[in-house]
Amino acid sequence: MEEVVQLIREDLEKLEISIEKLLTTRIPFIRDVVHHLTRSGGKRIRPILVILCSRLCGCRSDEHLPYAAIVEFIHTATLLHDDVVDNAVTRRGTATANILWGNEPSVLVGDFLFTKSFDLMVAHHNEEILKVMSKATTDLAEGEIMELLKTSDAQTLEEEYYEVIASKTAVLLSAACEIGALLGGVEHEKRIALRDFGFHMGMAFQLTDDLLDYTSTDRILGKDIGRDLKEGKVTLPLIHALKTATQTERESIEENLTKLHTTNEDFRKVKSIIEKYGGLDYTARISKEHIDAAKTLLNVFPASQYKKALVYLADHILARES
Amino acid sequence: MEEVVQLIREDLEKLEISIEKLLTTRIPFIRDVVHHLTRSGGKRIRPILVILCSRLCGCRSDEHLPYAAIVEFIHTATLLHDDVVDNAVTRRGTATANILWGNEPSVLVGDFLFTKSFDLMVAHHNEEILKVMSKATTDLAEGEIMELLKTSDAQTLEEEYYEVIASKTAVLLSAACEIGALLGGVEHEKRIALRDFGFHMGMAFQLTDDLLDYTSTDRILGKDIGRDLKEGKVTLPLIHALKTATQTERESIEENLTKLHTTNEDFRKVKSIIEKYGGLDYTARISKEHIDAAKTLLNVFPASQYKKALVYLADHILARES
Repeated sequence: MEEVVQLIREDLEKLEISIEKLLTTRIPFIRDVVHHLTRSGGKRIRPILVILCSRLCGCRSDEHLPYAAIVEFIHTATLLHDDVVDNAVTRRGTATANILWGNEPSVLVGDFLFTKSFDLMVAHHNEEILKVMSKATTDLAEGEIMELLKTSDAQTLEEEYYEVIASKTAVLLSAACEIGALLGGVEHEKRIALRDFGFHMGMAFQLTDDLLDYTSTDRILGKDIGRDLKEGKVTLPLIHALKTATQTERESIEENLTKLHTTNEDFRKVKSIIEKYGGLDYTARISKEHIDAAKTLLNVFPASQYKKALVYLADHILARES
Repeated sequence: MEEVVQLIREDLEKLEISIEKLLTTRIPFIRDVVHHLTRSGGKRIRPILVILCSRLCGCRSDEHLPYAAIVEFIHTATLLHDDVVDNAVTRRGTATANILWGNEPSVLVGDFLFTKSFDLMVAHHNEEILKVMSKATTDLAEGEIMELLKTSDAQTLEEEYYEVIASKTAVLLSAACEIGALLGGVEHEKRIALRDFGFHMGMAFQLTDDLLDYTSTDRILGKDIGRDLKEGKVTLPLIHALKTATQTERESIEENLTKLHTTNEDFRKVKSIIEKYGGLDYTARISKEHIDAAKTLLNVFPASQYKKALVYLADHILARES
């Protein structure tokens, strides 16, 4: 990642200033809560996509920076609400906002970030971007609800899982890339290419997340591994294994999905069933297919350092360990 | 209220259809949660203001109806999140969504309503309305956080209380009225008059709410009276009494604001202190001042049945019992 960061170092530095500046509010407490998340070593993957795609498409001004910040605000809002919904205790190696301050501020500061993001977008009046972003955030909210409704449901279909991760993750990365195309004013074909590139990146990103939840370690991941199982989240490794598991194995998985307290032993047992039926390899393969599709979409762009950085980023999504 | 309802009966009927139609989503569950709130006998005060102000300003089409629905969606989103934050059990005489389905759907369906509202507004592309509404919802989110931070704070100043209720309630009613002016295309003076009219209506509305929480009965109010004290909400009746209360009385109030379980006896005790120092009369007086200011602002409009209805609505806000 160091090469990518180096290429857009100036933009990334300005982004941090932008994040501070745009977060103006009468209430210092809001800053404290948001800083807790924005300064805790997030990957900034969404703003990086806005920046790289804007530059790739020939945007030479700094008008992409507020949008890069806004996309990060919206992501941060969903993190705050997710952690309330999941009763999460740690994120990125530190205590979550809901643990530090309670659920109430997490809900309300999340709302503030959503509404402030729209207020900022309206102030920058780019109607096309407004359309893309308002559609994306609505999809996102739907995706979160779909995921919630599928909690502990061992009958979840692979297609349903894809619909959930498309909405809850891929649409925002897709929007981030499309913003770059819109700011650069490129032709329709390139806009669609970047939109779809972001979508596939988002799918691969979430698939890798769901894979790491079974394969990483607490220390590297910065949060507990096995959280998906504990929270009853039925992700692709599990869905794939459930297709061919025996009745006994299926029952064991179902029991663990609804259990109030999943032990490390429970986790190891479920993981061994997943491994037996190749659920991890299958997930890695689907993830790689999305990355391949993403990279191919970049063919409409001539060679440039920004294109190279996007390809690098795509490969990094697959290779990352946390 | 019957006269007002009669005057805009057709609009109100179309509004209900609009609410249904605009709530399109892939997820039937979202409708269930929203219906639970929108069909449980809400006062529809915000959409009524959009409709009356639009008609007053000469809007003859139906373009005000989506906005009337959107304003109600945003209000509904805040109700869902408020009930999570307050751990509320009943609203409008029935169980709250968080009690029926848990906190998680309330948080996420609230998010959906916020994002969907923006998506709908962007689709109707009226830039001025977008600006008014995105500013109003950001203020609203800030107001909710300010209120939370002032919980159980017996030092809360009267000015701080006004800032909270202005943000959490008055700005949305103000925006509802301003939308009417914008759709009617009236001159600046009338737009400002309606904006301020809505603001004063909102202040009076919240002041009356906070008064009724001490003076109404559970049955009439459709929720427990004394909830503000139980939740540690420091409202004007209390703030006014605290100004002149004795040290012993102040300590008694402070104790009850932080108590985990407030009994009926505790409530009666605090209420008697409030009454002793005229906190209820004072709140009613301030509320009436706002209504008087609101009505005076309508002077820039010639006589009409819609103006008459707005005056009626203003008086109704003071006289209402629930």
